[in-house]
Amino acid sequence: MPVQPVTRFAFLGPEGTFTEAALHSLGTPSEGGAVPAPSVPAALAMVRSGEVDAALVPMENSVEGSVSPTIDGLAGGEPLVVTREVFLEVDFVLGVRPGTPLAAVRRVASHPHALAQVRGWLAAHLPDAEVVPAASTADAARLVAGGAPDPAGAVVAGAPDAAVCPELAAERYGLDLAATGLADAPGAVTRFVQVERPGRLPAPTGADKTTLTCFVADRTGALLDLLTEFASRGISLTRLESRPTREGLGVYSFSVDCEGHVADRRVGDALVALHRLCDDVRFHGSYPRSDGRAAAEVTERFADAAFGTAEDWLTRLREGAGG
Amino acid sequence: MPVQPVTRFAFLGPEGTFTEAALHSLGTPSEGGAVPAPSVPAALAMVRSGEVDAALVPMENSVEGSVSPTIDGLAGGEPLVVTREVFLEVDFVLGVRPGTPLAAVRRVASHPHALAQVRGWLAAHLPDAEVVPAASTADAARLVAGGAPDPAGAVVAGAPDAAVCPELAAERYGLDLAATGLADAPGAVTRFVQVERPGRLPAPTGADKTTLTCFVADRTGALLDLLTEFASRGISLTRLESRPTREGLGVYSFSVDCEGHVADRRVGDALVALHRLCDDVRFHGSYPRSDGRAAAEVTERFADAAFGTAEDWLTRLREGAGG
Amino acid sequence: MPVQPVTRFAFLGPEGTFTEAALHSLGTPSEGGAVPAPSVPAALAMVRSGEVDAALVPMENSVEGSVSPTIDGLAGGEPLVVTREVFLEVDFVLGVRPGTPLAAVRRVASHPHALAQVRGWLAAHLPDAEVVPAASTADAARLVAGGAPDPAGAVVAGAPDAAVCPELAAERYGLDLAATGLADAPGAVTRFVQVERPGRLPAPTGADKTTLTCFVADRTGALLDLLTEFASRGISLTRLESRPTREGLGVYSFSVDCEGHVADRRVGDALVALHRLCDDVRFHGSYPRSDGRAAAEVTERFADAAFGTAEDWLTRLREGAGG
Amino acid sequence: MPVQPVTRFAFLGPEGTFTEAALHSLGTPSEGGAVPAPSVPAALAMVRSGEVDAALVPMENSVEGSVSPTIDGLAGGEPLVVTREVFLEVDFVLGVRPGTPLAAVRRVASHPHALAQVRGWLAAHLPDAEVVPAASTADAARLVAGGAPDPAGAVVAGAPDAAVCPELAAERYGLDLAATGLADAPGAVTRFVQVERPGRLPAPTGADKTTLTCFVADRTGALLDLLTEFASRGISLTRLESRPTREGLGVYSFSVDCEGHVADRRVGDALVALHRLCDDVRFHGSYPRSDGRAAAEVTERFADAAFGTAEDWLTRLREGAGG
Repeated sequence: MPVQPVTRFAFLGPEGTFTEAALHSLGTPSEGGAVPAPSVPAALAMVRSGEVDAALVPMENSVEGSVSPTIDGLAGGEPLVVTREVFLEVDFVLGVRPGTPLAAVRRVASHPHALAQVRGWLAAHLPDAEVVPAASTADAARLVAGGAPDPAGAVVAGAPDAAVCPELAAERYGLDLAATGLADAPGAVTRFVQVERPGRLPAPTGADKTTLTCFVADRTGALLDLLTEFASRGISLTRLESRPTREGLGVYSFSVDCEGHVADRRVGDALVALHRLCDDVRFHGSYPRSDGRAAAEVTERFADAAFGTAEDWLTRLREGAGG
Repeated sequence: MPVQPVTRFAFLGPEGTFTEAALHSLGTPSEGGAVPAPSVPAALAMVRSGEVDAALVPMENSVEGSVSPTIDGLAGGEPLVVTREVFLEVDFVLGVRPGTPLAAVRRVASHPHALAQVRGWLAAHLPDAEVVPAASTADAARLVAGGAPDPAGAVVAGAPDAAVCPELAAERYGLDLAATGLADAPGAVTRFVQVERPGRLPAPTGADKTTLTCFVADRTGALLDLLTEFASRGISLTRLESRPTREGLGVYSFSVDCEGHVADRRVGDALVALHRLCDDVRFHGSYPRSDGRAAAEVTERFADAAFGTAEDWLTRLREGAGG
Repeated sequence: MPVQPVTRFAFLGPEGTFTEAALHSLGTPSEGGAVPAPSVPAALAMVRSGEVDAALVPMENSVEGSVSPTIDGLAGGEPLVVTREVFLEVDFVLGVRPGTPLAAVRRVASHPHALAQVRGWLAAHLPDAEVVPAASTADAARLVAGGAPDPAGAVVAGAPDAAVCPELAAERYGLDLAATGLADAPGAVTRFVQVERPGRLPAPTGADKTTLTCFVADRTGALLDLLTEFASRGISLTRLESRPTREGLGVYSFSVDCEGHVADRRVGDALVALHRLCDDVRFHGSYPRSDGRAAAEVTERFADAAFGTAEDWLTRLREGAGG
Repeated sequence: MPVQPVTRFAFLGPEGTFTEAALHSLGTPSEGGAVPAPSVPAALAMVRSGEVDAALVPMENSVEGSVSPTIDGLAGGEPLVVTREVFLEVDFVLGVRPGTPLAAVRRVASHPHALAQVRGWLAAHLPDAEVVPAASTADAARLVAGGAPDPAGAVVAGAPDAAVCPELAAERYGLDLAATGLADAPGAVTRFVQVERPGRLPAPTGADKTTLTCFVADRTGALLDLLTEFASRGISLTRLESRPTREGLGVYSFSVDCEGHVADRRVGDALVALHRLCDDVRFHGSYPRSDGRAAAEVTERFADAAFGTAEDWLTRLREGAGG
């Protein structure tokens, strides 16, 4: 299965948002290779249709939790797989038109979510400023930039003076940073994933993750059974989210990230068990982990060699040998 | 512990949002008894400070999943308990100034989240309209209403012509309904909870729920052990969400709703086990379920009588009787 | 692997005991093909050395429980496998020399175990008889027969008048049955197993058993983990015995019979898991069950087809397909 | 509940057996206080009827495994409790009439079980001796002693020359030890238990055992559920035996020894859970362990204090406090 290199990217837009910053941190793509998508579903649709090779979308955030459109966008529809993850510390700057002092800011624009995360900072530093919503943090920066003095020195009526936005957006729209580190809860991290059509399975590195969606009927113990299949093979979960599904009242899905690669015997063995156990299970890829945490060491009884030895033994038993 | 009746409510504002609609569906409160809060944390703070008796806030949504600020607002800070839940079907209308035909709509305002949920409808019915963000769905309605023709027949420059909002917001701001049922995925339901300071524990009804947050160290099997304590007592979970915590890298919390009331022996027994098992466990109330689903029947071995008989037996054994 | 037919049998002797009766119930072997062994270890040694093709030995008894020498004889030493099981209802007769009335019985002989099982009957019917031990129930019958009147009409001094023995022993030594149904607890059943050197694996019948010995380190939960491997694959245990081992303080073995055949996917899968989990695991054969109980029906998710489908899916995933 | 001191003992007889030796190792009872019983059921019946205060009976043997009559005698009938355990290394001597050299031994008597355990020794040292069964090892010694030369120097015809028996039996019947250490598998240990009517519950010592019989319906997972109740409370099992029951086809019982005392919170809590879980559960006492092995240390979350704290917390929750 020859695989084309990933040259065309979609990302959750617009330009200048954290997702584009995350994309840049990956060193990709080349000039003109990245197009903004208006939403996560739109970005995933561009991958499915072949319009782009991959999409970068947010998966979870240390403050807000899982990003439901990404979780649900993987769980339903044509198969997509994650091939890479990237973590980005999320913080906000206050972007202003060049030369604008903080004291002169009267109107602050941003996406409502971003405004919620800097509420404390605004109350402390710009208590009298009017807060206006924007469609995105980047759009807020664009609005501020668009309100630049005209040749006659006038400012566009009603334009905001400042944007709460990523540093990239300020840079993109030529804004000065009137302040940085605006987040009330510093240290927030967002995890982004690179999503592609199946075909390219990253090679195991020894420190990998695998993403799955498991659908189970609504019965006491379904999740317990499911977790047992991981625990009995020494596989740690790094993310677990329960989601109601639309297929019918009383059917739940569990979105799961676990340690290990589908090529690892213990992970493959768990997948076979889950396939039997669950009403349905979807595989969303195995890829190198880049969360900066060491993978738990695989104890001997869960290592590939233990599976190989055990299966050889079984083969001999079935041929009539004693054991 | 004499308990004052709940007469003063906070709700996730502004006025006219779904949360206020949910509050009305409860038949409470009396005139002037409900004040909007700008955010979930603000609403919870008003309860903690005693400014109000209770807050109504969204807990989970069938499309978007858990509402993180509510989950986290219960998990941290001074204790709060849920005393009631209410489910509301969420749908959007297109509110316009009286007399405005759909064909005349040029600008549509709403909260970005709402706009995302009606994207398909807008593409089909208003493909050429400009979409503008608002701070909330209700604020969009306010902006539309504020754009009413002035005495001279002029419209305020830039005001939107239509708002994507709850019916309650349209009504509140005197808008006509140019269209209803805008949601691309109909049938979405939001679950709201009434949150109070501890003190008032609703009596068991036989069909109750209990809400908890369990904090466990990051080890394989922690969740398995936790679920075993529920399963071994025949207690079904109706919601489960894993959340990272800020207390330190590698500490997870699980936000859980389970069937049953803290006054039920099986639930009390599970709580004792969880208290021993978890690094910490917080109790967020027991209250009647109102999700329209029958509680699973409690089998004999999990009923209060089975616990009573077993404990009487244990008492006799400890006094030296045989068994 | 061409397999010789089983023509030479050892059985737990001496002749006339229940084990020989069980052997006859199998319709085997032909004249001269069965030799008594003085003990279970001796019978197993005859199989291991090739002196006989198979041994029939008792495995468990509904009154006495497991037969330790058989359990231990399988668990240690060169591999042996069970190829057949047979159940025999165990009851005792009172064998006397022809013409001896019950009232004339003064001395009753039997193996101490058998005497223990008819204690009540003896107290009721022969309260004044002297009870004398014999090396086996069959030997008791032999002693009674040997006490036949000599030509001069005298009886050998001290010979017992009656033997508590299997009907087969009475028949073998030409004794009359002065009474039958002597067992104080009627309905006792002994399960015998046919043990061979590996090489002949009986074909699956759909109602089979598999016998194993699992060695685990002495830690809380070892058995729990072990049982989980069966339960999570829908495999019922029909016998379980915990045994201390001599390999070292604190190492336990579990002797297990489970439903299913090693050729069944679910059983093979469990064996692989046990091989990884246990310090050691020994396979003692798969064979048709003949306990007269229907095998529990295998639910769809544990059937061979479910494993096949799941493994095909895994193969595709590993080749880069989505799932 | 005033408890009479234990002054009258029954033991598994006859005199001179290992059980009497175990009784002596306990330092009890005083002269004339111990009476032999012909069988384990008889010894237990003497306790139940009040004829004696306690019985000492074998519970398990490192070679032979569980002693079924003791297991079953506790499981059925009027309640009995274990109040003490004692371990005795089991070995055999060759007892002969004073002055008999080993080379002069022609006939060796013993209980068939004992003969089986010294088969190797006899083959090596007395290959030509005739082996004759006796009702017990002590009876063998009695027979040898009874064969003493009469005044005229004659020996009673047919009397054995040597007995394979415990040293105590040789001593009791005035025999010399022609050889010691006859057991083919040295190091065998038998565990004896002191059984009484309920009423006297030994105080917790910090290193105790509790004995139970659990009856469960025959369903996959019954034992798994049962073991989970121990494991989730950090309680190790020191013995586990599965037994068929006579109450009906397909009902199993599990005879269990676990660490801890019924007065310990974790054990009491497990008993309550087992009482709910099992069709029936019988308590056979808590008593100091004397197996020479240190009890596993109780981790904090399973200690009494953890239960106390958790239950206090639950009480507060039920009174309306937050948590």
